[in-house]
Amino acid sequence: MNNFSFHNPVKIHFGKSQITEKLSHEVEAYSKIMLCYGGGSIKNNGIYNKVIDALKTKDILEFGGIEANPDYETLMKAVELARNESVDFILAVGGGSVIDGVKFIAAATYYNDGDPWEILSKRVKFTKTLPFGTVLTLPATGSEMNSNAVISRKSTNEKLDFSNPNSFPVFSILDPETMYSLPDTQISNGIIDSFIHVIEQYLTYPVNAPIQDRFAESILRTLIEEGPKLLKNRNDYDTNANLMWASTMALNGLLRCGVPEDWSTHMIGHEITALFGIDHAKTLAIVLPGVLTVLQDVKKQKLLQYGLKVWNINGNDENSIEEIIDVTEGFFQRLGVRTRLKDYKINVHDINKICKRLEDRGYVELGENKNISPDLVRKILESRL
Amino acid sequence: MNNFSFHNPVKIHFGKSQITEKLSHEVEAYSKIMLCYGGGSIKNNGIYNKVIDALKTKDILEFGGIEANPDYETLMKAVELARNESVDFILAVGGGSVIDGVKFIAAATYYNDGDPWEILSKRVKFTKTLPFGTVLTLPATGSEMNSNAVISRKSTNEKLDFSNPNSFPVFSILDPETMYSLPDTQISNGIIDSFIHVIEQYLTYPVNAPIQDRFAESILRTLIEEGPKLLKNRNDYDTNANLMWASTMALNGLLRCGVPEDWSTHMIGHEITALFGIDHAKTLAIVLPGVLTVLQDVKKQKLLQYGLKVWNINGNDENSIEEIIDVTEGFFQRLGVRTRLKDYKINVHDINKICKRLEDRGYVELGENKNISPDLVRKILESRL
Repeated sequence: MNNFSFHNPVKIHFGKSQITEKLSHEVEAYSKIMLCYGGGSIKNNGIYNKVIDALKTKDILEFGGIEANPDYETLMKAVELARNESVDFILAVGGGSVIDGVKFIAAATYYNDGDPWEILSKRVKFTKTLPFGTVLTLPATGSEMNSNAVISRKSTNEKLDFSNPNSFPVFSILDPETMYSLPDTQISNGIIDSFIHVIEQYLTYPVNAPIQDRFAESILRTLIEEGPKLLKNRNDYDTNANLMWASTMALNGLLRCGVPEDWSTHMIGHEITALFGIDHAKTLAIVLPGVLTVLQDVKKQKLLQYGLKVWNINGNDENSIEEIIDVTEGFFQRLGVRTRLKDYKINVHDINKICKRLEDRGYVELGENKNISPDLVRKILESRL
Repeated sequence: MNNFSFHNPVKIHFGKSQITEKLSHEVEAYSKIMLCYGGGSIKNNGIYNKVIDALKTKDILEFGGIEANPDYETLMKAVELARNESVDFILAVGGGSVIDGVKFIAAATYYNDGDPWEILSKRVKFTKTLPFGTVLTLPATGSEMNSNAVISRKSTNEKLDFSNPNSFPVFSILDPETMYSLPDTQISNGIIDSFIHVIEQYLTYPVNAPIQDRFAESILRTLIEEGPKLLKNRNDYDTNANLMWASTMALNGLLRCGVPEDWSTHMIGHEITALFGIDHAKTLAIVLPGVLTVLQDVKKQKLLQYGLKVWNINGNDENSIEEIIDVTEGFFQRLGVRTRLKDYKINVHDINKICKRLEDRGYVELGENKNISPDLVRKILESRL
């Protein structure tokens, strides 16, 4: 096992009626709260009313309209508002995009040393943020219990991430009933996103870390069992709850303790979203089978372990590996997600653009072994046409 | 899944050389540090010197001699010292006894409303403690990453616990190399203690919580695999590391999220330690097989799941359950721990004393169903003669 540090101070309130029971107490210490949300679906499904009711004694400022792949220009309007109105707390109500957006707003509000875009482009470390909490409505990114965020800039087709120890939510409220009204496609995307978060921290090379491996396999098996079940019966409370908790556990810092991490699928996927506007999870479902195919030799030991422990595929030759990659891709397809570039009208010329972007950004050595060169990225993507 | 709240702000530094690399930075903000430890073994194995070296710029006050099953009278001397010397931070260097002791010292130092024993006897809630950190040298209790403590009072043969949201360590340093010099019996005790921590949060009744169940099974399987391996090869770094991390994860609040909890084995075991001075873990190894035997009907579903997932025992009749309980007891014995009351010279008359203590304390309805009456406790203990 490798050395590691772990720190996750987020307070979680999980279950039915937790917005009503816990929110007002959690914001007691704050007076001017900026309520951030996305396209307004929370106004149709009753969540908005529950939140407003819990905050009724507070001075509230609303900032709606944070889009999927939250845009820098949008977020900077919220930053201006937060500064001008002396907001002392932000409440994010939504999925990963709203929460990531709020992480950026919280950091940028106190960022006075230059253009806040540098938090992303130069990964400048900041030491102070506005405190914020979240009400999660879409399990997928794990953002409700981590300190990472991914922000886009549509004017330049960029999608970049940051992580900072000051960017943990103070609390997150996870009520599985908020998932009932989500479109099926967001459920599928969330399951795939969570699945591949685990894979990025697990499917690398062995370092004799059985707790971490088994926790990863636990989450993968749960996603495989509960995912298709949820798409058949969207209002089963326990299935929603199990997927919501699986998704949070998939990226709260626990799985990565003491083990190598890959993240090449995410890095390549981010460029595809930035250039072609494809949903984040769908880009991952496209890229991962390519990464596993092209990197199968260096990943062999963990691939076979993954096959055995997660899919009950017992074997140690090339055919087994092919089968393991096939069932993984088949799982994404069973969730209704297409897994080929051509399904999204991306062709061989577009691959050039993607590779060029990665190269320009200096991301030339991806993966747990820092051995995924631009040539290998091309090979990965060509295998996904 | 049941509703739950989870909050664990402890910062963990895990691995080789972490005392040297992380300790001085973590105590930067404090000026007068009380260094607490046990019988002095840290002076023989080099840990004391490493700690002193890391704290060299600080004003240090030493308080050694915190015994196994830390005693109220001892701890109150430390409280007096902390108050008189205006200590602003406590560093616990040791195992669960030292860390639990420091949790009590940290709370009692600011407890001015009466006799600090009330924190245990009346479970009085306190709102302020001295901040403290830990250097763990004996994995077992999970105290390094939770807010619980168990304190004894030898003058009255009592052993009571408390838990408080203000009693988390600020940080804990876990260096598996500190385990090399432990006696075998402490290793065995630690493995059994961790194992039964998991069992108390897992072996109850099903609530459809597959992540929690699988995490529990992950830790149990790891303890079963790595435990005997460590006793054969005490200086294998990875085996030490895997057991240390398993032990911390066994009782850091994660497994209990959204599931019922038992803790009857612990409640009965505490009385045996308080009355007869037997090691904590050994009392658990004695009591658990009795709890499982006597409660097998209400625990049947989870017992069979435990047998299948942890021991690969496939069956659903009484014989299977007997086999499952037998292999569990056999595991404790393979670690060198005796599992019968008579092995410790406890007889049927002593059982009366134990039952009377539990009754006097009002602990008459133990277990996840609150259905373990004094009569059942007697039956459990009689099955363990």
